[in-house]
Amino acid sequence: MTSRVLIVVVSVLMAAVVPAGAQPDRDFRASVAAWVVQNQPEIVGELMELLSIPNVAADRENIRRNAGRLREMLGRRGFEAEVLETETNPLVYGELRAPGATRTILFYSHYDGQPVEPSAWEQPDPFGPVLRTGRLDRGGALVRDVPGGRDRPAYQDDWRLYARSASDDKSPIVGLLAALDALKALGQAPTANIRVILDGEEEAGSPGLVPAIGKYRDKLRADLMVILDGPIHSSNRPTIAYGARGIVTLTLTVFGPKAGVHSGNYGNWIPNPAQRLASLLASMKDDSGRVLVKGFYDSVAPLSSEEQAILDAVPDDAARMLRTFGVAAPEPAFGSFQAALQMPTLNIRGLASAHVGAGARTIIPDRAVAAMDIRLVKETSAADLVEKLRAHVRDRGYHLVSGEPDDEARATHGRIASLEAAAATNAFRTSPLDPQARRVAVALEGAFGAPPVQLRTLGGTVPIAPFVEALGFPAILVPIVNFDNNQHEENENLRLGNLFQGIEIISAILRS
Amino acid sequence: MTSRVLIVVVSVLMAAVVPAGAQPDRDFRASVAAWVVQNQPEIVGELMELLSIPNVAADRENIRRNAGRLREMLGRRGFEAEVLETETNPLVYGELRAPGATRTILFYSHYDGQPVEPSAWEQPDPFGPVLRTGRLDRGGALVRDVPGGRDRPAYQDDWRLYARSASDDKSPIVGLLAALDALKALGQAPTANIRVILDGEEEAGSPGLVPAIGKYRDKLRADLMVILDGPIHSSNRPTIAYGARGIVTLTLTVFGPKAGVHSGNYGNWIPNPAQRLASLLASMKDDSGRVLVKGFYDSVAPLSSEEQAILDAVPDDAARMLRTFGVAAPEPAFGSFQAALQMPTLNIRGLASAHVGAGARTIIPDRAVAAMDIRLVKETSAADLVEKLRAHVRDRGYHLVSGEPDDEARATHGRIASLEAAAATNAFRTSPLDPQARRVAVALEGAFGAPPVQLRTLGGTVPIAPFVEALGFPAILVPIVNFDNNQHEENENLRLGNLFQGIEIISAILRS
Repeated sequence: MTSRVLIVVVSVLMAAVVPAGAQPDRDFRASVAAWVVQNQPEIVGELMELLSIPNVAADRENIRRNAGRLREMLGRRGFEAEVLETETNPLVYGELRAPGATRTILFYSHYDGQPVEPSAWEQPDPFGPVLRTGRLDRGGALVRDVPGGRDRPAYQDDWRLYARSASDDKSPIVGLLAALDALKALGQAPTANIRVILDGEEEAGSPGLVPAIGKYRDKLRADLMVILDGPIHSSNRPTIAYGARGIVTLTLTVFGPKAGVHSGNYGNWIPNPAQRLASLLASMKDDSGRVLVKGFYDSVAPLSSEEQAILDAVPDDAARMLRTFGVAAPEPAFGSFQAALQMPTLNIRGLASAHVGAGARTIIPDRAVAAMDIRLVKETSAADLVEKLRAHVRDRGYHLVSGEPDDEARATHGRIASLEAAAATNAFRTSPLDPQARRVAVALEGAFGAPPVQLRTLGGTVPIAPFVEALGFPAILVPIVNFDNNQHEENENLRLGNLFQGIEIISAILRS
Repeated sequence: MTSRVLIVVVSVLMAAVVPAGAQPDRDFRASVAAWVVQNQPEIVGELMELLSIPNVAADRENIRRNAGRLREMLGRRGFEAEVLETETNPLVYGELRAPGATRTILFYSHYDGQPVEPSAWEQPDPFGPVLRTGRLDRGGALVRDVPGGRDRPAYQDDWRLYARSASDDKSPIVGLLAALDALKALGQAPTANIRVILDGEEEAGSPGLVPAIGKYRDKLRADLMVILDGPIHSSNRPTIAYGARGIVTLTLTVFGPKAGVHSGNYGNWIPNPAQRLASLLASMKDDSGRVLVKGFYDSVAPLSSEEQAILDAVPDDAARMLRTFGVAAPEPAFGSFQAALQMPTLNIRGLASAHVGAGARTIIPDRAVAAMDIRLVKETSAADLVEKLRAHVRDRGYHLVSGEPDDEARATHGRIASLEAAAATNAFRTSPLDPQARRVAVALEGAFGAPPVQLRTLGGTVPIAPFVEALGFPAILVPIVNFDNNQHEENENLRLGNLFQGIEIISAILRS
């Protein structure tokens, strides 16, 4: 299906809900865009100042400095803002009531960032933001003086701002506040009461977030949570993700002899745990990539035609992705890329047994280990899938142990394995037909003249999922930053055009 | 089959060739044993002095010191002894003609040892031999003063001498020279001309050994080579091994995306190379341990009933071995332990793909690697088996590359792998019915009153195999040192009783 056809399909789908004559929304967006052009120095300047405060979750002192600055930034926009203490790093909270509004949107972002290893960066300090004319790996040069003046765009869309958290996740915070500034400057108010919750330890797993609900439930109540985090669809079109897959990681170990034995002296006689692990793993999946573990897909309902249409409308460039990854063909089990993301996975993320390469020795190893992960969808429970996997291993003749097998187990059981699962993060998924979520999609289509990219679910897992689950009201993700932002790595960066477009996106949501 | 039954079977087998009334051989052995008791201090002393000269192959200066000392030790026994230069470390050679002898035995040992990491040893210096009352890991205490005098055994059989090369392979050299001393003291001469070749770089792969044949062929000619190396059968009974398996090592790599990709973002869509490697490896062997690669066993002929009887007579204690290794049951493919060693193997000696444990990341790895080895038997060629394995991989839909796949290969082929084989060492095997080999077996049965343990082939590979192959006359291995000698590792040791028994074994061979 070509993307032209896709757009037609989605337009037909949307026709029922998108009001005719959405031109005013587009005009409003154009006004916001013009305001942004005029205010680029202030917007980028505010972001650079915020990025200059180190924000690794373990750095309590600087985390406090960030929280204080953010509270002040919210206060300047008229929020009732406060720092909410948790068992660990503080949350920053703000509330801005809109005249006559009958609903509330809770915006979530996080102000902490991944740890840094400065020596790996192409700049002296990851917390000393650097502006470049493009991507570093494509020759982007340092911008020393920003050309132009108040009457024309001084900052180029393709310029990149390099700093820790430039994209993940401080720019959405600045984008939200700039959108509020734009509305105010244009004489508009949000159509919903706005609440903002800023997490100070998302990159450390947000340990304080769910416990904080008990303490601050009233403040966190809303009709919709909009999570401003993550990269936009690679087409750079406004994007809504209605959910994310969950995850449970596992370690599968097949035990061999107590210690490695000589592969000549004992080869063909002492069983090889690496061979057995291979056989066990092979039994779990067919060649198409479909999981063979009994009942693995049982709870996943087939897609409705509406859901299928949403999947089909995503403008994925599969050929380009495959080229990028150097893969000739995808796994055929589920058809399209989006279809593949709707299903739970069973993935081998690592293998180890003795050594390969220069360190390899001619032995029958003592054990073979597969690190695995299962990506969960909303209908699947981690406990259920892990138990099914355990049953599969048992059905293949294995005695399952916890930890190391003792001598008695070794003397009794011909095949011994262990399967340890870590704590799971569940999936979450909001229906694209949820009225609050629909308002956002409609607003974005109105503002941009085309439907947003709608992702029924992200393939990955977001740490905020347990928070969403615990709050119990609908949540969607609205990512704004460039997909090639080097998130979590050295040389994290923001494409400025994505911040500017993000302000337009958030403005539309505020007016939804 | 109990070991009592085994002995009967072997006795029946031997009856045709063992002369009746072998009592004189047993009496002679008793005389040798008595001589050994009287001369323990000199024997152990000579070994300790030899062990005090460091002998890592790369340590050229000390290797020269070893060679000089050995030449002198041979000369003292009447050998025409010389140091033979090779392209690398020198060989030590000696010839001792026996009056009236019409045949020649070439004894092979090596005087170099494995590299040492002194900090891992329980003694200050691996080249400072230490005598203990037993195994270190069973509380063996330091022997400071050897009790007793000339009229009773001063050294206990269960004492252990700890030093690099105590067992591998200096003690067989000292054992051979002591056996010659014993013969002389007892007024006997060897029944064959004796040639000795001492290798100075066996632990470094003996690079100079085969090339030396061209230069010194006349000196190396013999009717039988007796290789004094390796551990005796775990029953501690005199042992002959008629051959050893060969080896070729391989690296099988299945390629995935160019770099690891996020297992959530792309799981179910980008093929996982670890899963594919598991499936490929699983396809190579059935659950019994039998290789499924087409034609893998084609060239291996079934055993004759005589060969089967030799295998059945080996007093392996399978239950004890399994207990030691902590394995409940062996692979069932070939039946007994000895039967398993007669067949080529296909072994996974290592697996690697991304990371397991604390370093594991939720990715689809870029590749998965299996380090493998094939143990060869005399009938199999490495090139043939590797080609069959390559055909197997191709039959499973893989495009085979050398090195890394390029972009074109990645764009064209859905499945890409590489299979690299290292240089092979062939198997060697002398027939137990070879007349020269038979003489040794008969002599050992005569001296010890029971047939030796006869191993049709060792499961492992010996570096001397190419030398045996190039010389072209029969060769057997006669190991004398304890099987639990910690060969190649820290705390290498010799059980003194094995050296003393070894002198009796070698004396019997000299009189065969």
